[in-house]
Amino acid sequence: MGATEPQWVLMATGRSPTNIAVIKYWGKRDEALILPVNDSISVTLDPDHLSATTTVAASPSFPSDRMWLNGKEIALSGGRFQSCLREIRKRARDVEDEKKGIKIKKEDWEKLHVHIASYNNFPTAAGLASSAAGLACLVFTLGKLMNVNEDYGELSSIARQGSGSACRSIYGGFVKWCMGKNDDGSDSMAVQLVDESHWDDLVIIIAVVSSKQKETSSTSGMRDTVETSPLLQYRAQTVVPSRILKMEDAIKNRDFESFARLTCADSNQFHAVCLDTSPPIFYMNDTSHRIISLVEKWNHSEGTPQRLPTHLMLGLMLS
Amino acid sequence: MGATEPQWVLMATGRSPTNIAVIKYWGKRDEALILPVNDSISVTLDPDHLSATTTVAASPSFPSDRMWLNGKEIALSGGRFQSCLREIRKRARDVEDEKKGIKIKKEDWEKLHVHIASYNNFPTAAGLASSAAGLACLVFTLGKLMNVNEDYGELSSIARQGSGSACRSIYGGFVKWCMGKNDDGSDSMAVQLVDESHWDDLVIIIAVVSSKQKETSSTSGMRDTVETSPLLQYRAQTVVPSRILKMEDAIKNRDFESFARLTCADSNQFHAVCLDTSPPIFYMNDTSHRIISLVEKWNHSEGTPQRLPTHLMLGLMLS
Repeated sequence: MGATEPQWVLMATGRSPTNIAVIKYWGKRDEALILPVNDSISVTLDPDHLSATTTVAASPSFPSDRMWLNGKEIALSGGRFQSCLREIRKRARDVEDEKKGIKIKKEDWEKLHVHIASYNNFPTAAGLASSAAGLACLVFTLGKLMNVNEDYGELSSIARQGSGSACRSIYGGFVKWCMGKNDDGSDSMAVQLVDESHWDDLVIIIAVVSSKQKETSSTSGMRDTVETSPLLQYRAQTVVPSRILKMEDAIKNRDFESFARLTCADSNQFHAVCLDTSPPIFYMNDTSHRIISLVEKWNHSEGTPQRLPTHLMLGLMLS
Repeated sequence: MGATEPQWVLMATGRSPTNIAVIKYWGKRDEALILPVNDSISVTLDPDHLSATTTVAASPSFPSDRMWLNGKEIALSGGRFQSCLREIRKRARDVEDEKKGIKIKKEDWEKLHVHIASYNNFPTAAGLASSAAGLACLVFTLGKLMNVNEDYGELSSIARQGSGSACRSIYGGFVKWCMGKNDDGSDSMAVQLVDESHWDDLVIIIAVVSSKQKETSSTSGMRDTVETSPLLQYRAQTVVPSRILKMEDAIKNRDFESFARLTCADSNQFHAVCLDTSPPIFYMNDTSHRIISLVEKWNHSEGTPQRLPTHLMLGLMLS
């Protein structure tokens, strides 16, 4: 430690929930910017249930940026973390903490390094959108630390560059990720369709059929699907656009039957394009199959989807 | 027994192998005539391995048509059996057995009833095309009994009306079922692409991952897929036609790499449209997934499909 250098540490903590897609995101049209091949819609979970909690700290005594996930240090060198750090640093503003006697000028943030500690209160990389919660939380908490003044749309666009579906975790309630048209991704961001109070008697049941890490990561899985599945482009261009419109209506009208049918159908189609990939990707196991068959039989015997959110049972393997 | 009625029994026995599709048949455009939504191609297995053996008997002492499958009597009332019986009876000709003193006129066949006994030497309704072997064998053996003189194309067209894929079991080697265009199905029949000697070092490994009866029969499964899968028509109209051409080339050139890749891709896409069905149809289990992953990893590590017919491992659940 230099004797003249003030050795303060400034910290901020945030918590972001995971989200479960009801119209699925699967496939990028731009790998670096994380621009998807179709719009998607998700439900953000209650942060008390499945969420990431992240503490970020900045100090002149930190010689480099470092990160710990669930207590284990992980490399920050990946392009995704770097994109988020860069984009937030760009927007950093003056920070003053009179009590601690800390004064950081906008331009100082370029030289200050951060330490990041993030915890998930649910299994990581097991299909429960841990990276969505984690990256949304990172962007949100860094923004807080660096006194960033952007609106949620802008933050969602930054989170998107960390992990696509993270952009949807910036909002509560039902959220749509608009794929956008621009090559630079400036219009690819999340919008809140309705907030969490709109459909507050909807309860989501998550059945964890395996807490092991997925054999194929979402990133490499969707790359393989884009490159090899003959069905994906048809899904993205023809099937999803009409489902998005129907899903928005179902959510606005709290039409559970349409909501459940669309969610189940889209979850199944997501798994279908995974199977249509070469080599095929399996995100369901015999237990998933049994749960789905049970719910389908129950719904069939009652004639209409029961108010047990079957879609979320189907959605649990990957969002 | 009437004292004046001659109580003879005339019999014929035949054996037909099952076949495994390498470009899959899934979906009918006409349920009654069994006309498919796309062409398909299969390999007919060696009858010494997986086959149906059927004995048909006719006698003036039989008061009705009856059938036994694997020793258990089954109803012959289904439209499919009746179609085959009707079409073969139409084409019956005079039969004379001097030794036994039997003389049957063409027109007598309309009044003579038959008993049918069929055995499969492999699990029935477990995804191994038992109905393909069974119905092909029934048509072939009835034709023999009734001295029918039709060519194999015509017989395949009759077998098709018993069970779609049965039309392909009429021939050995590699067989293409041309979907045809006519509404009456007259041009929907099988043709032999090459006979069994063309690629005689190709060995097929069948791994039975479950010998239980399928939860969803092919008939009702494909009906559900046609009615509910948004991806099926795209597969049938856009993906399959180009795969059929490539597969014909691969077979003609004994190009194992192309053959294996196409077979795996098409097997996976068949399972994908099953998943895209509402409710979803699962014909694979964890064991199937593990076998596929093992073979994919092996092929990947060697850089090219190994001469272990992975396609047939994939194809084993349904053909």
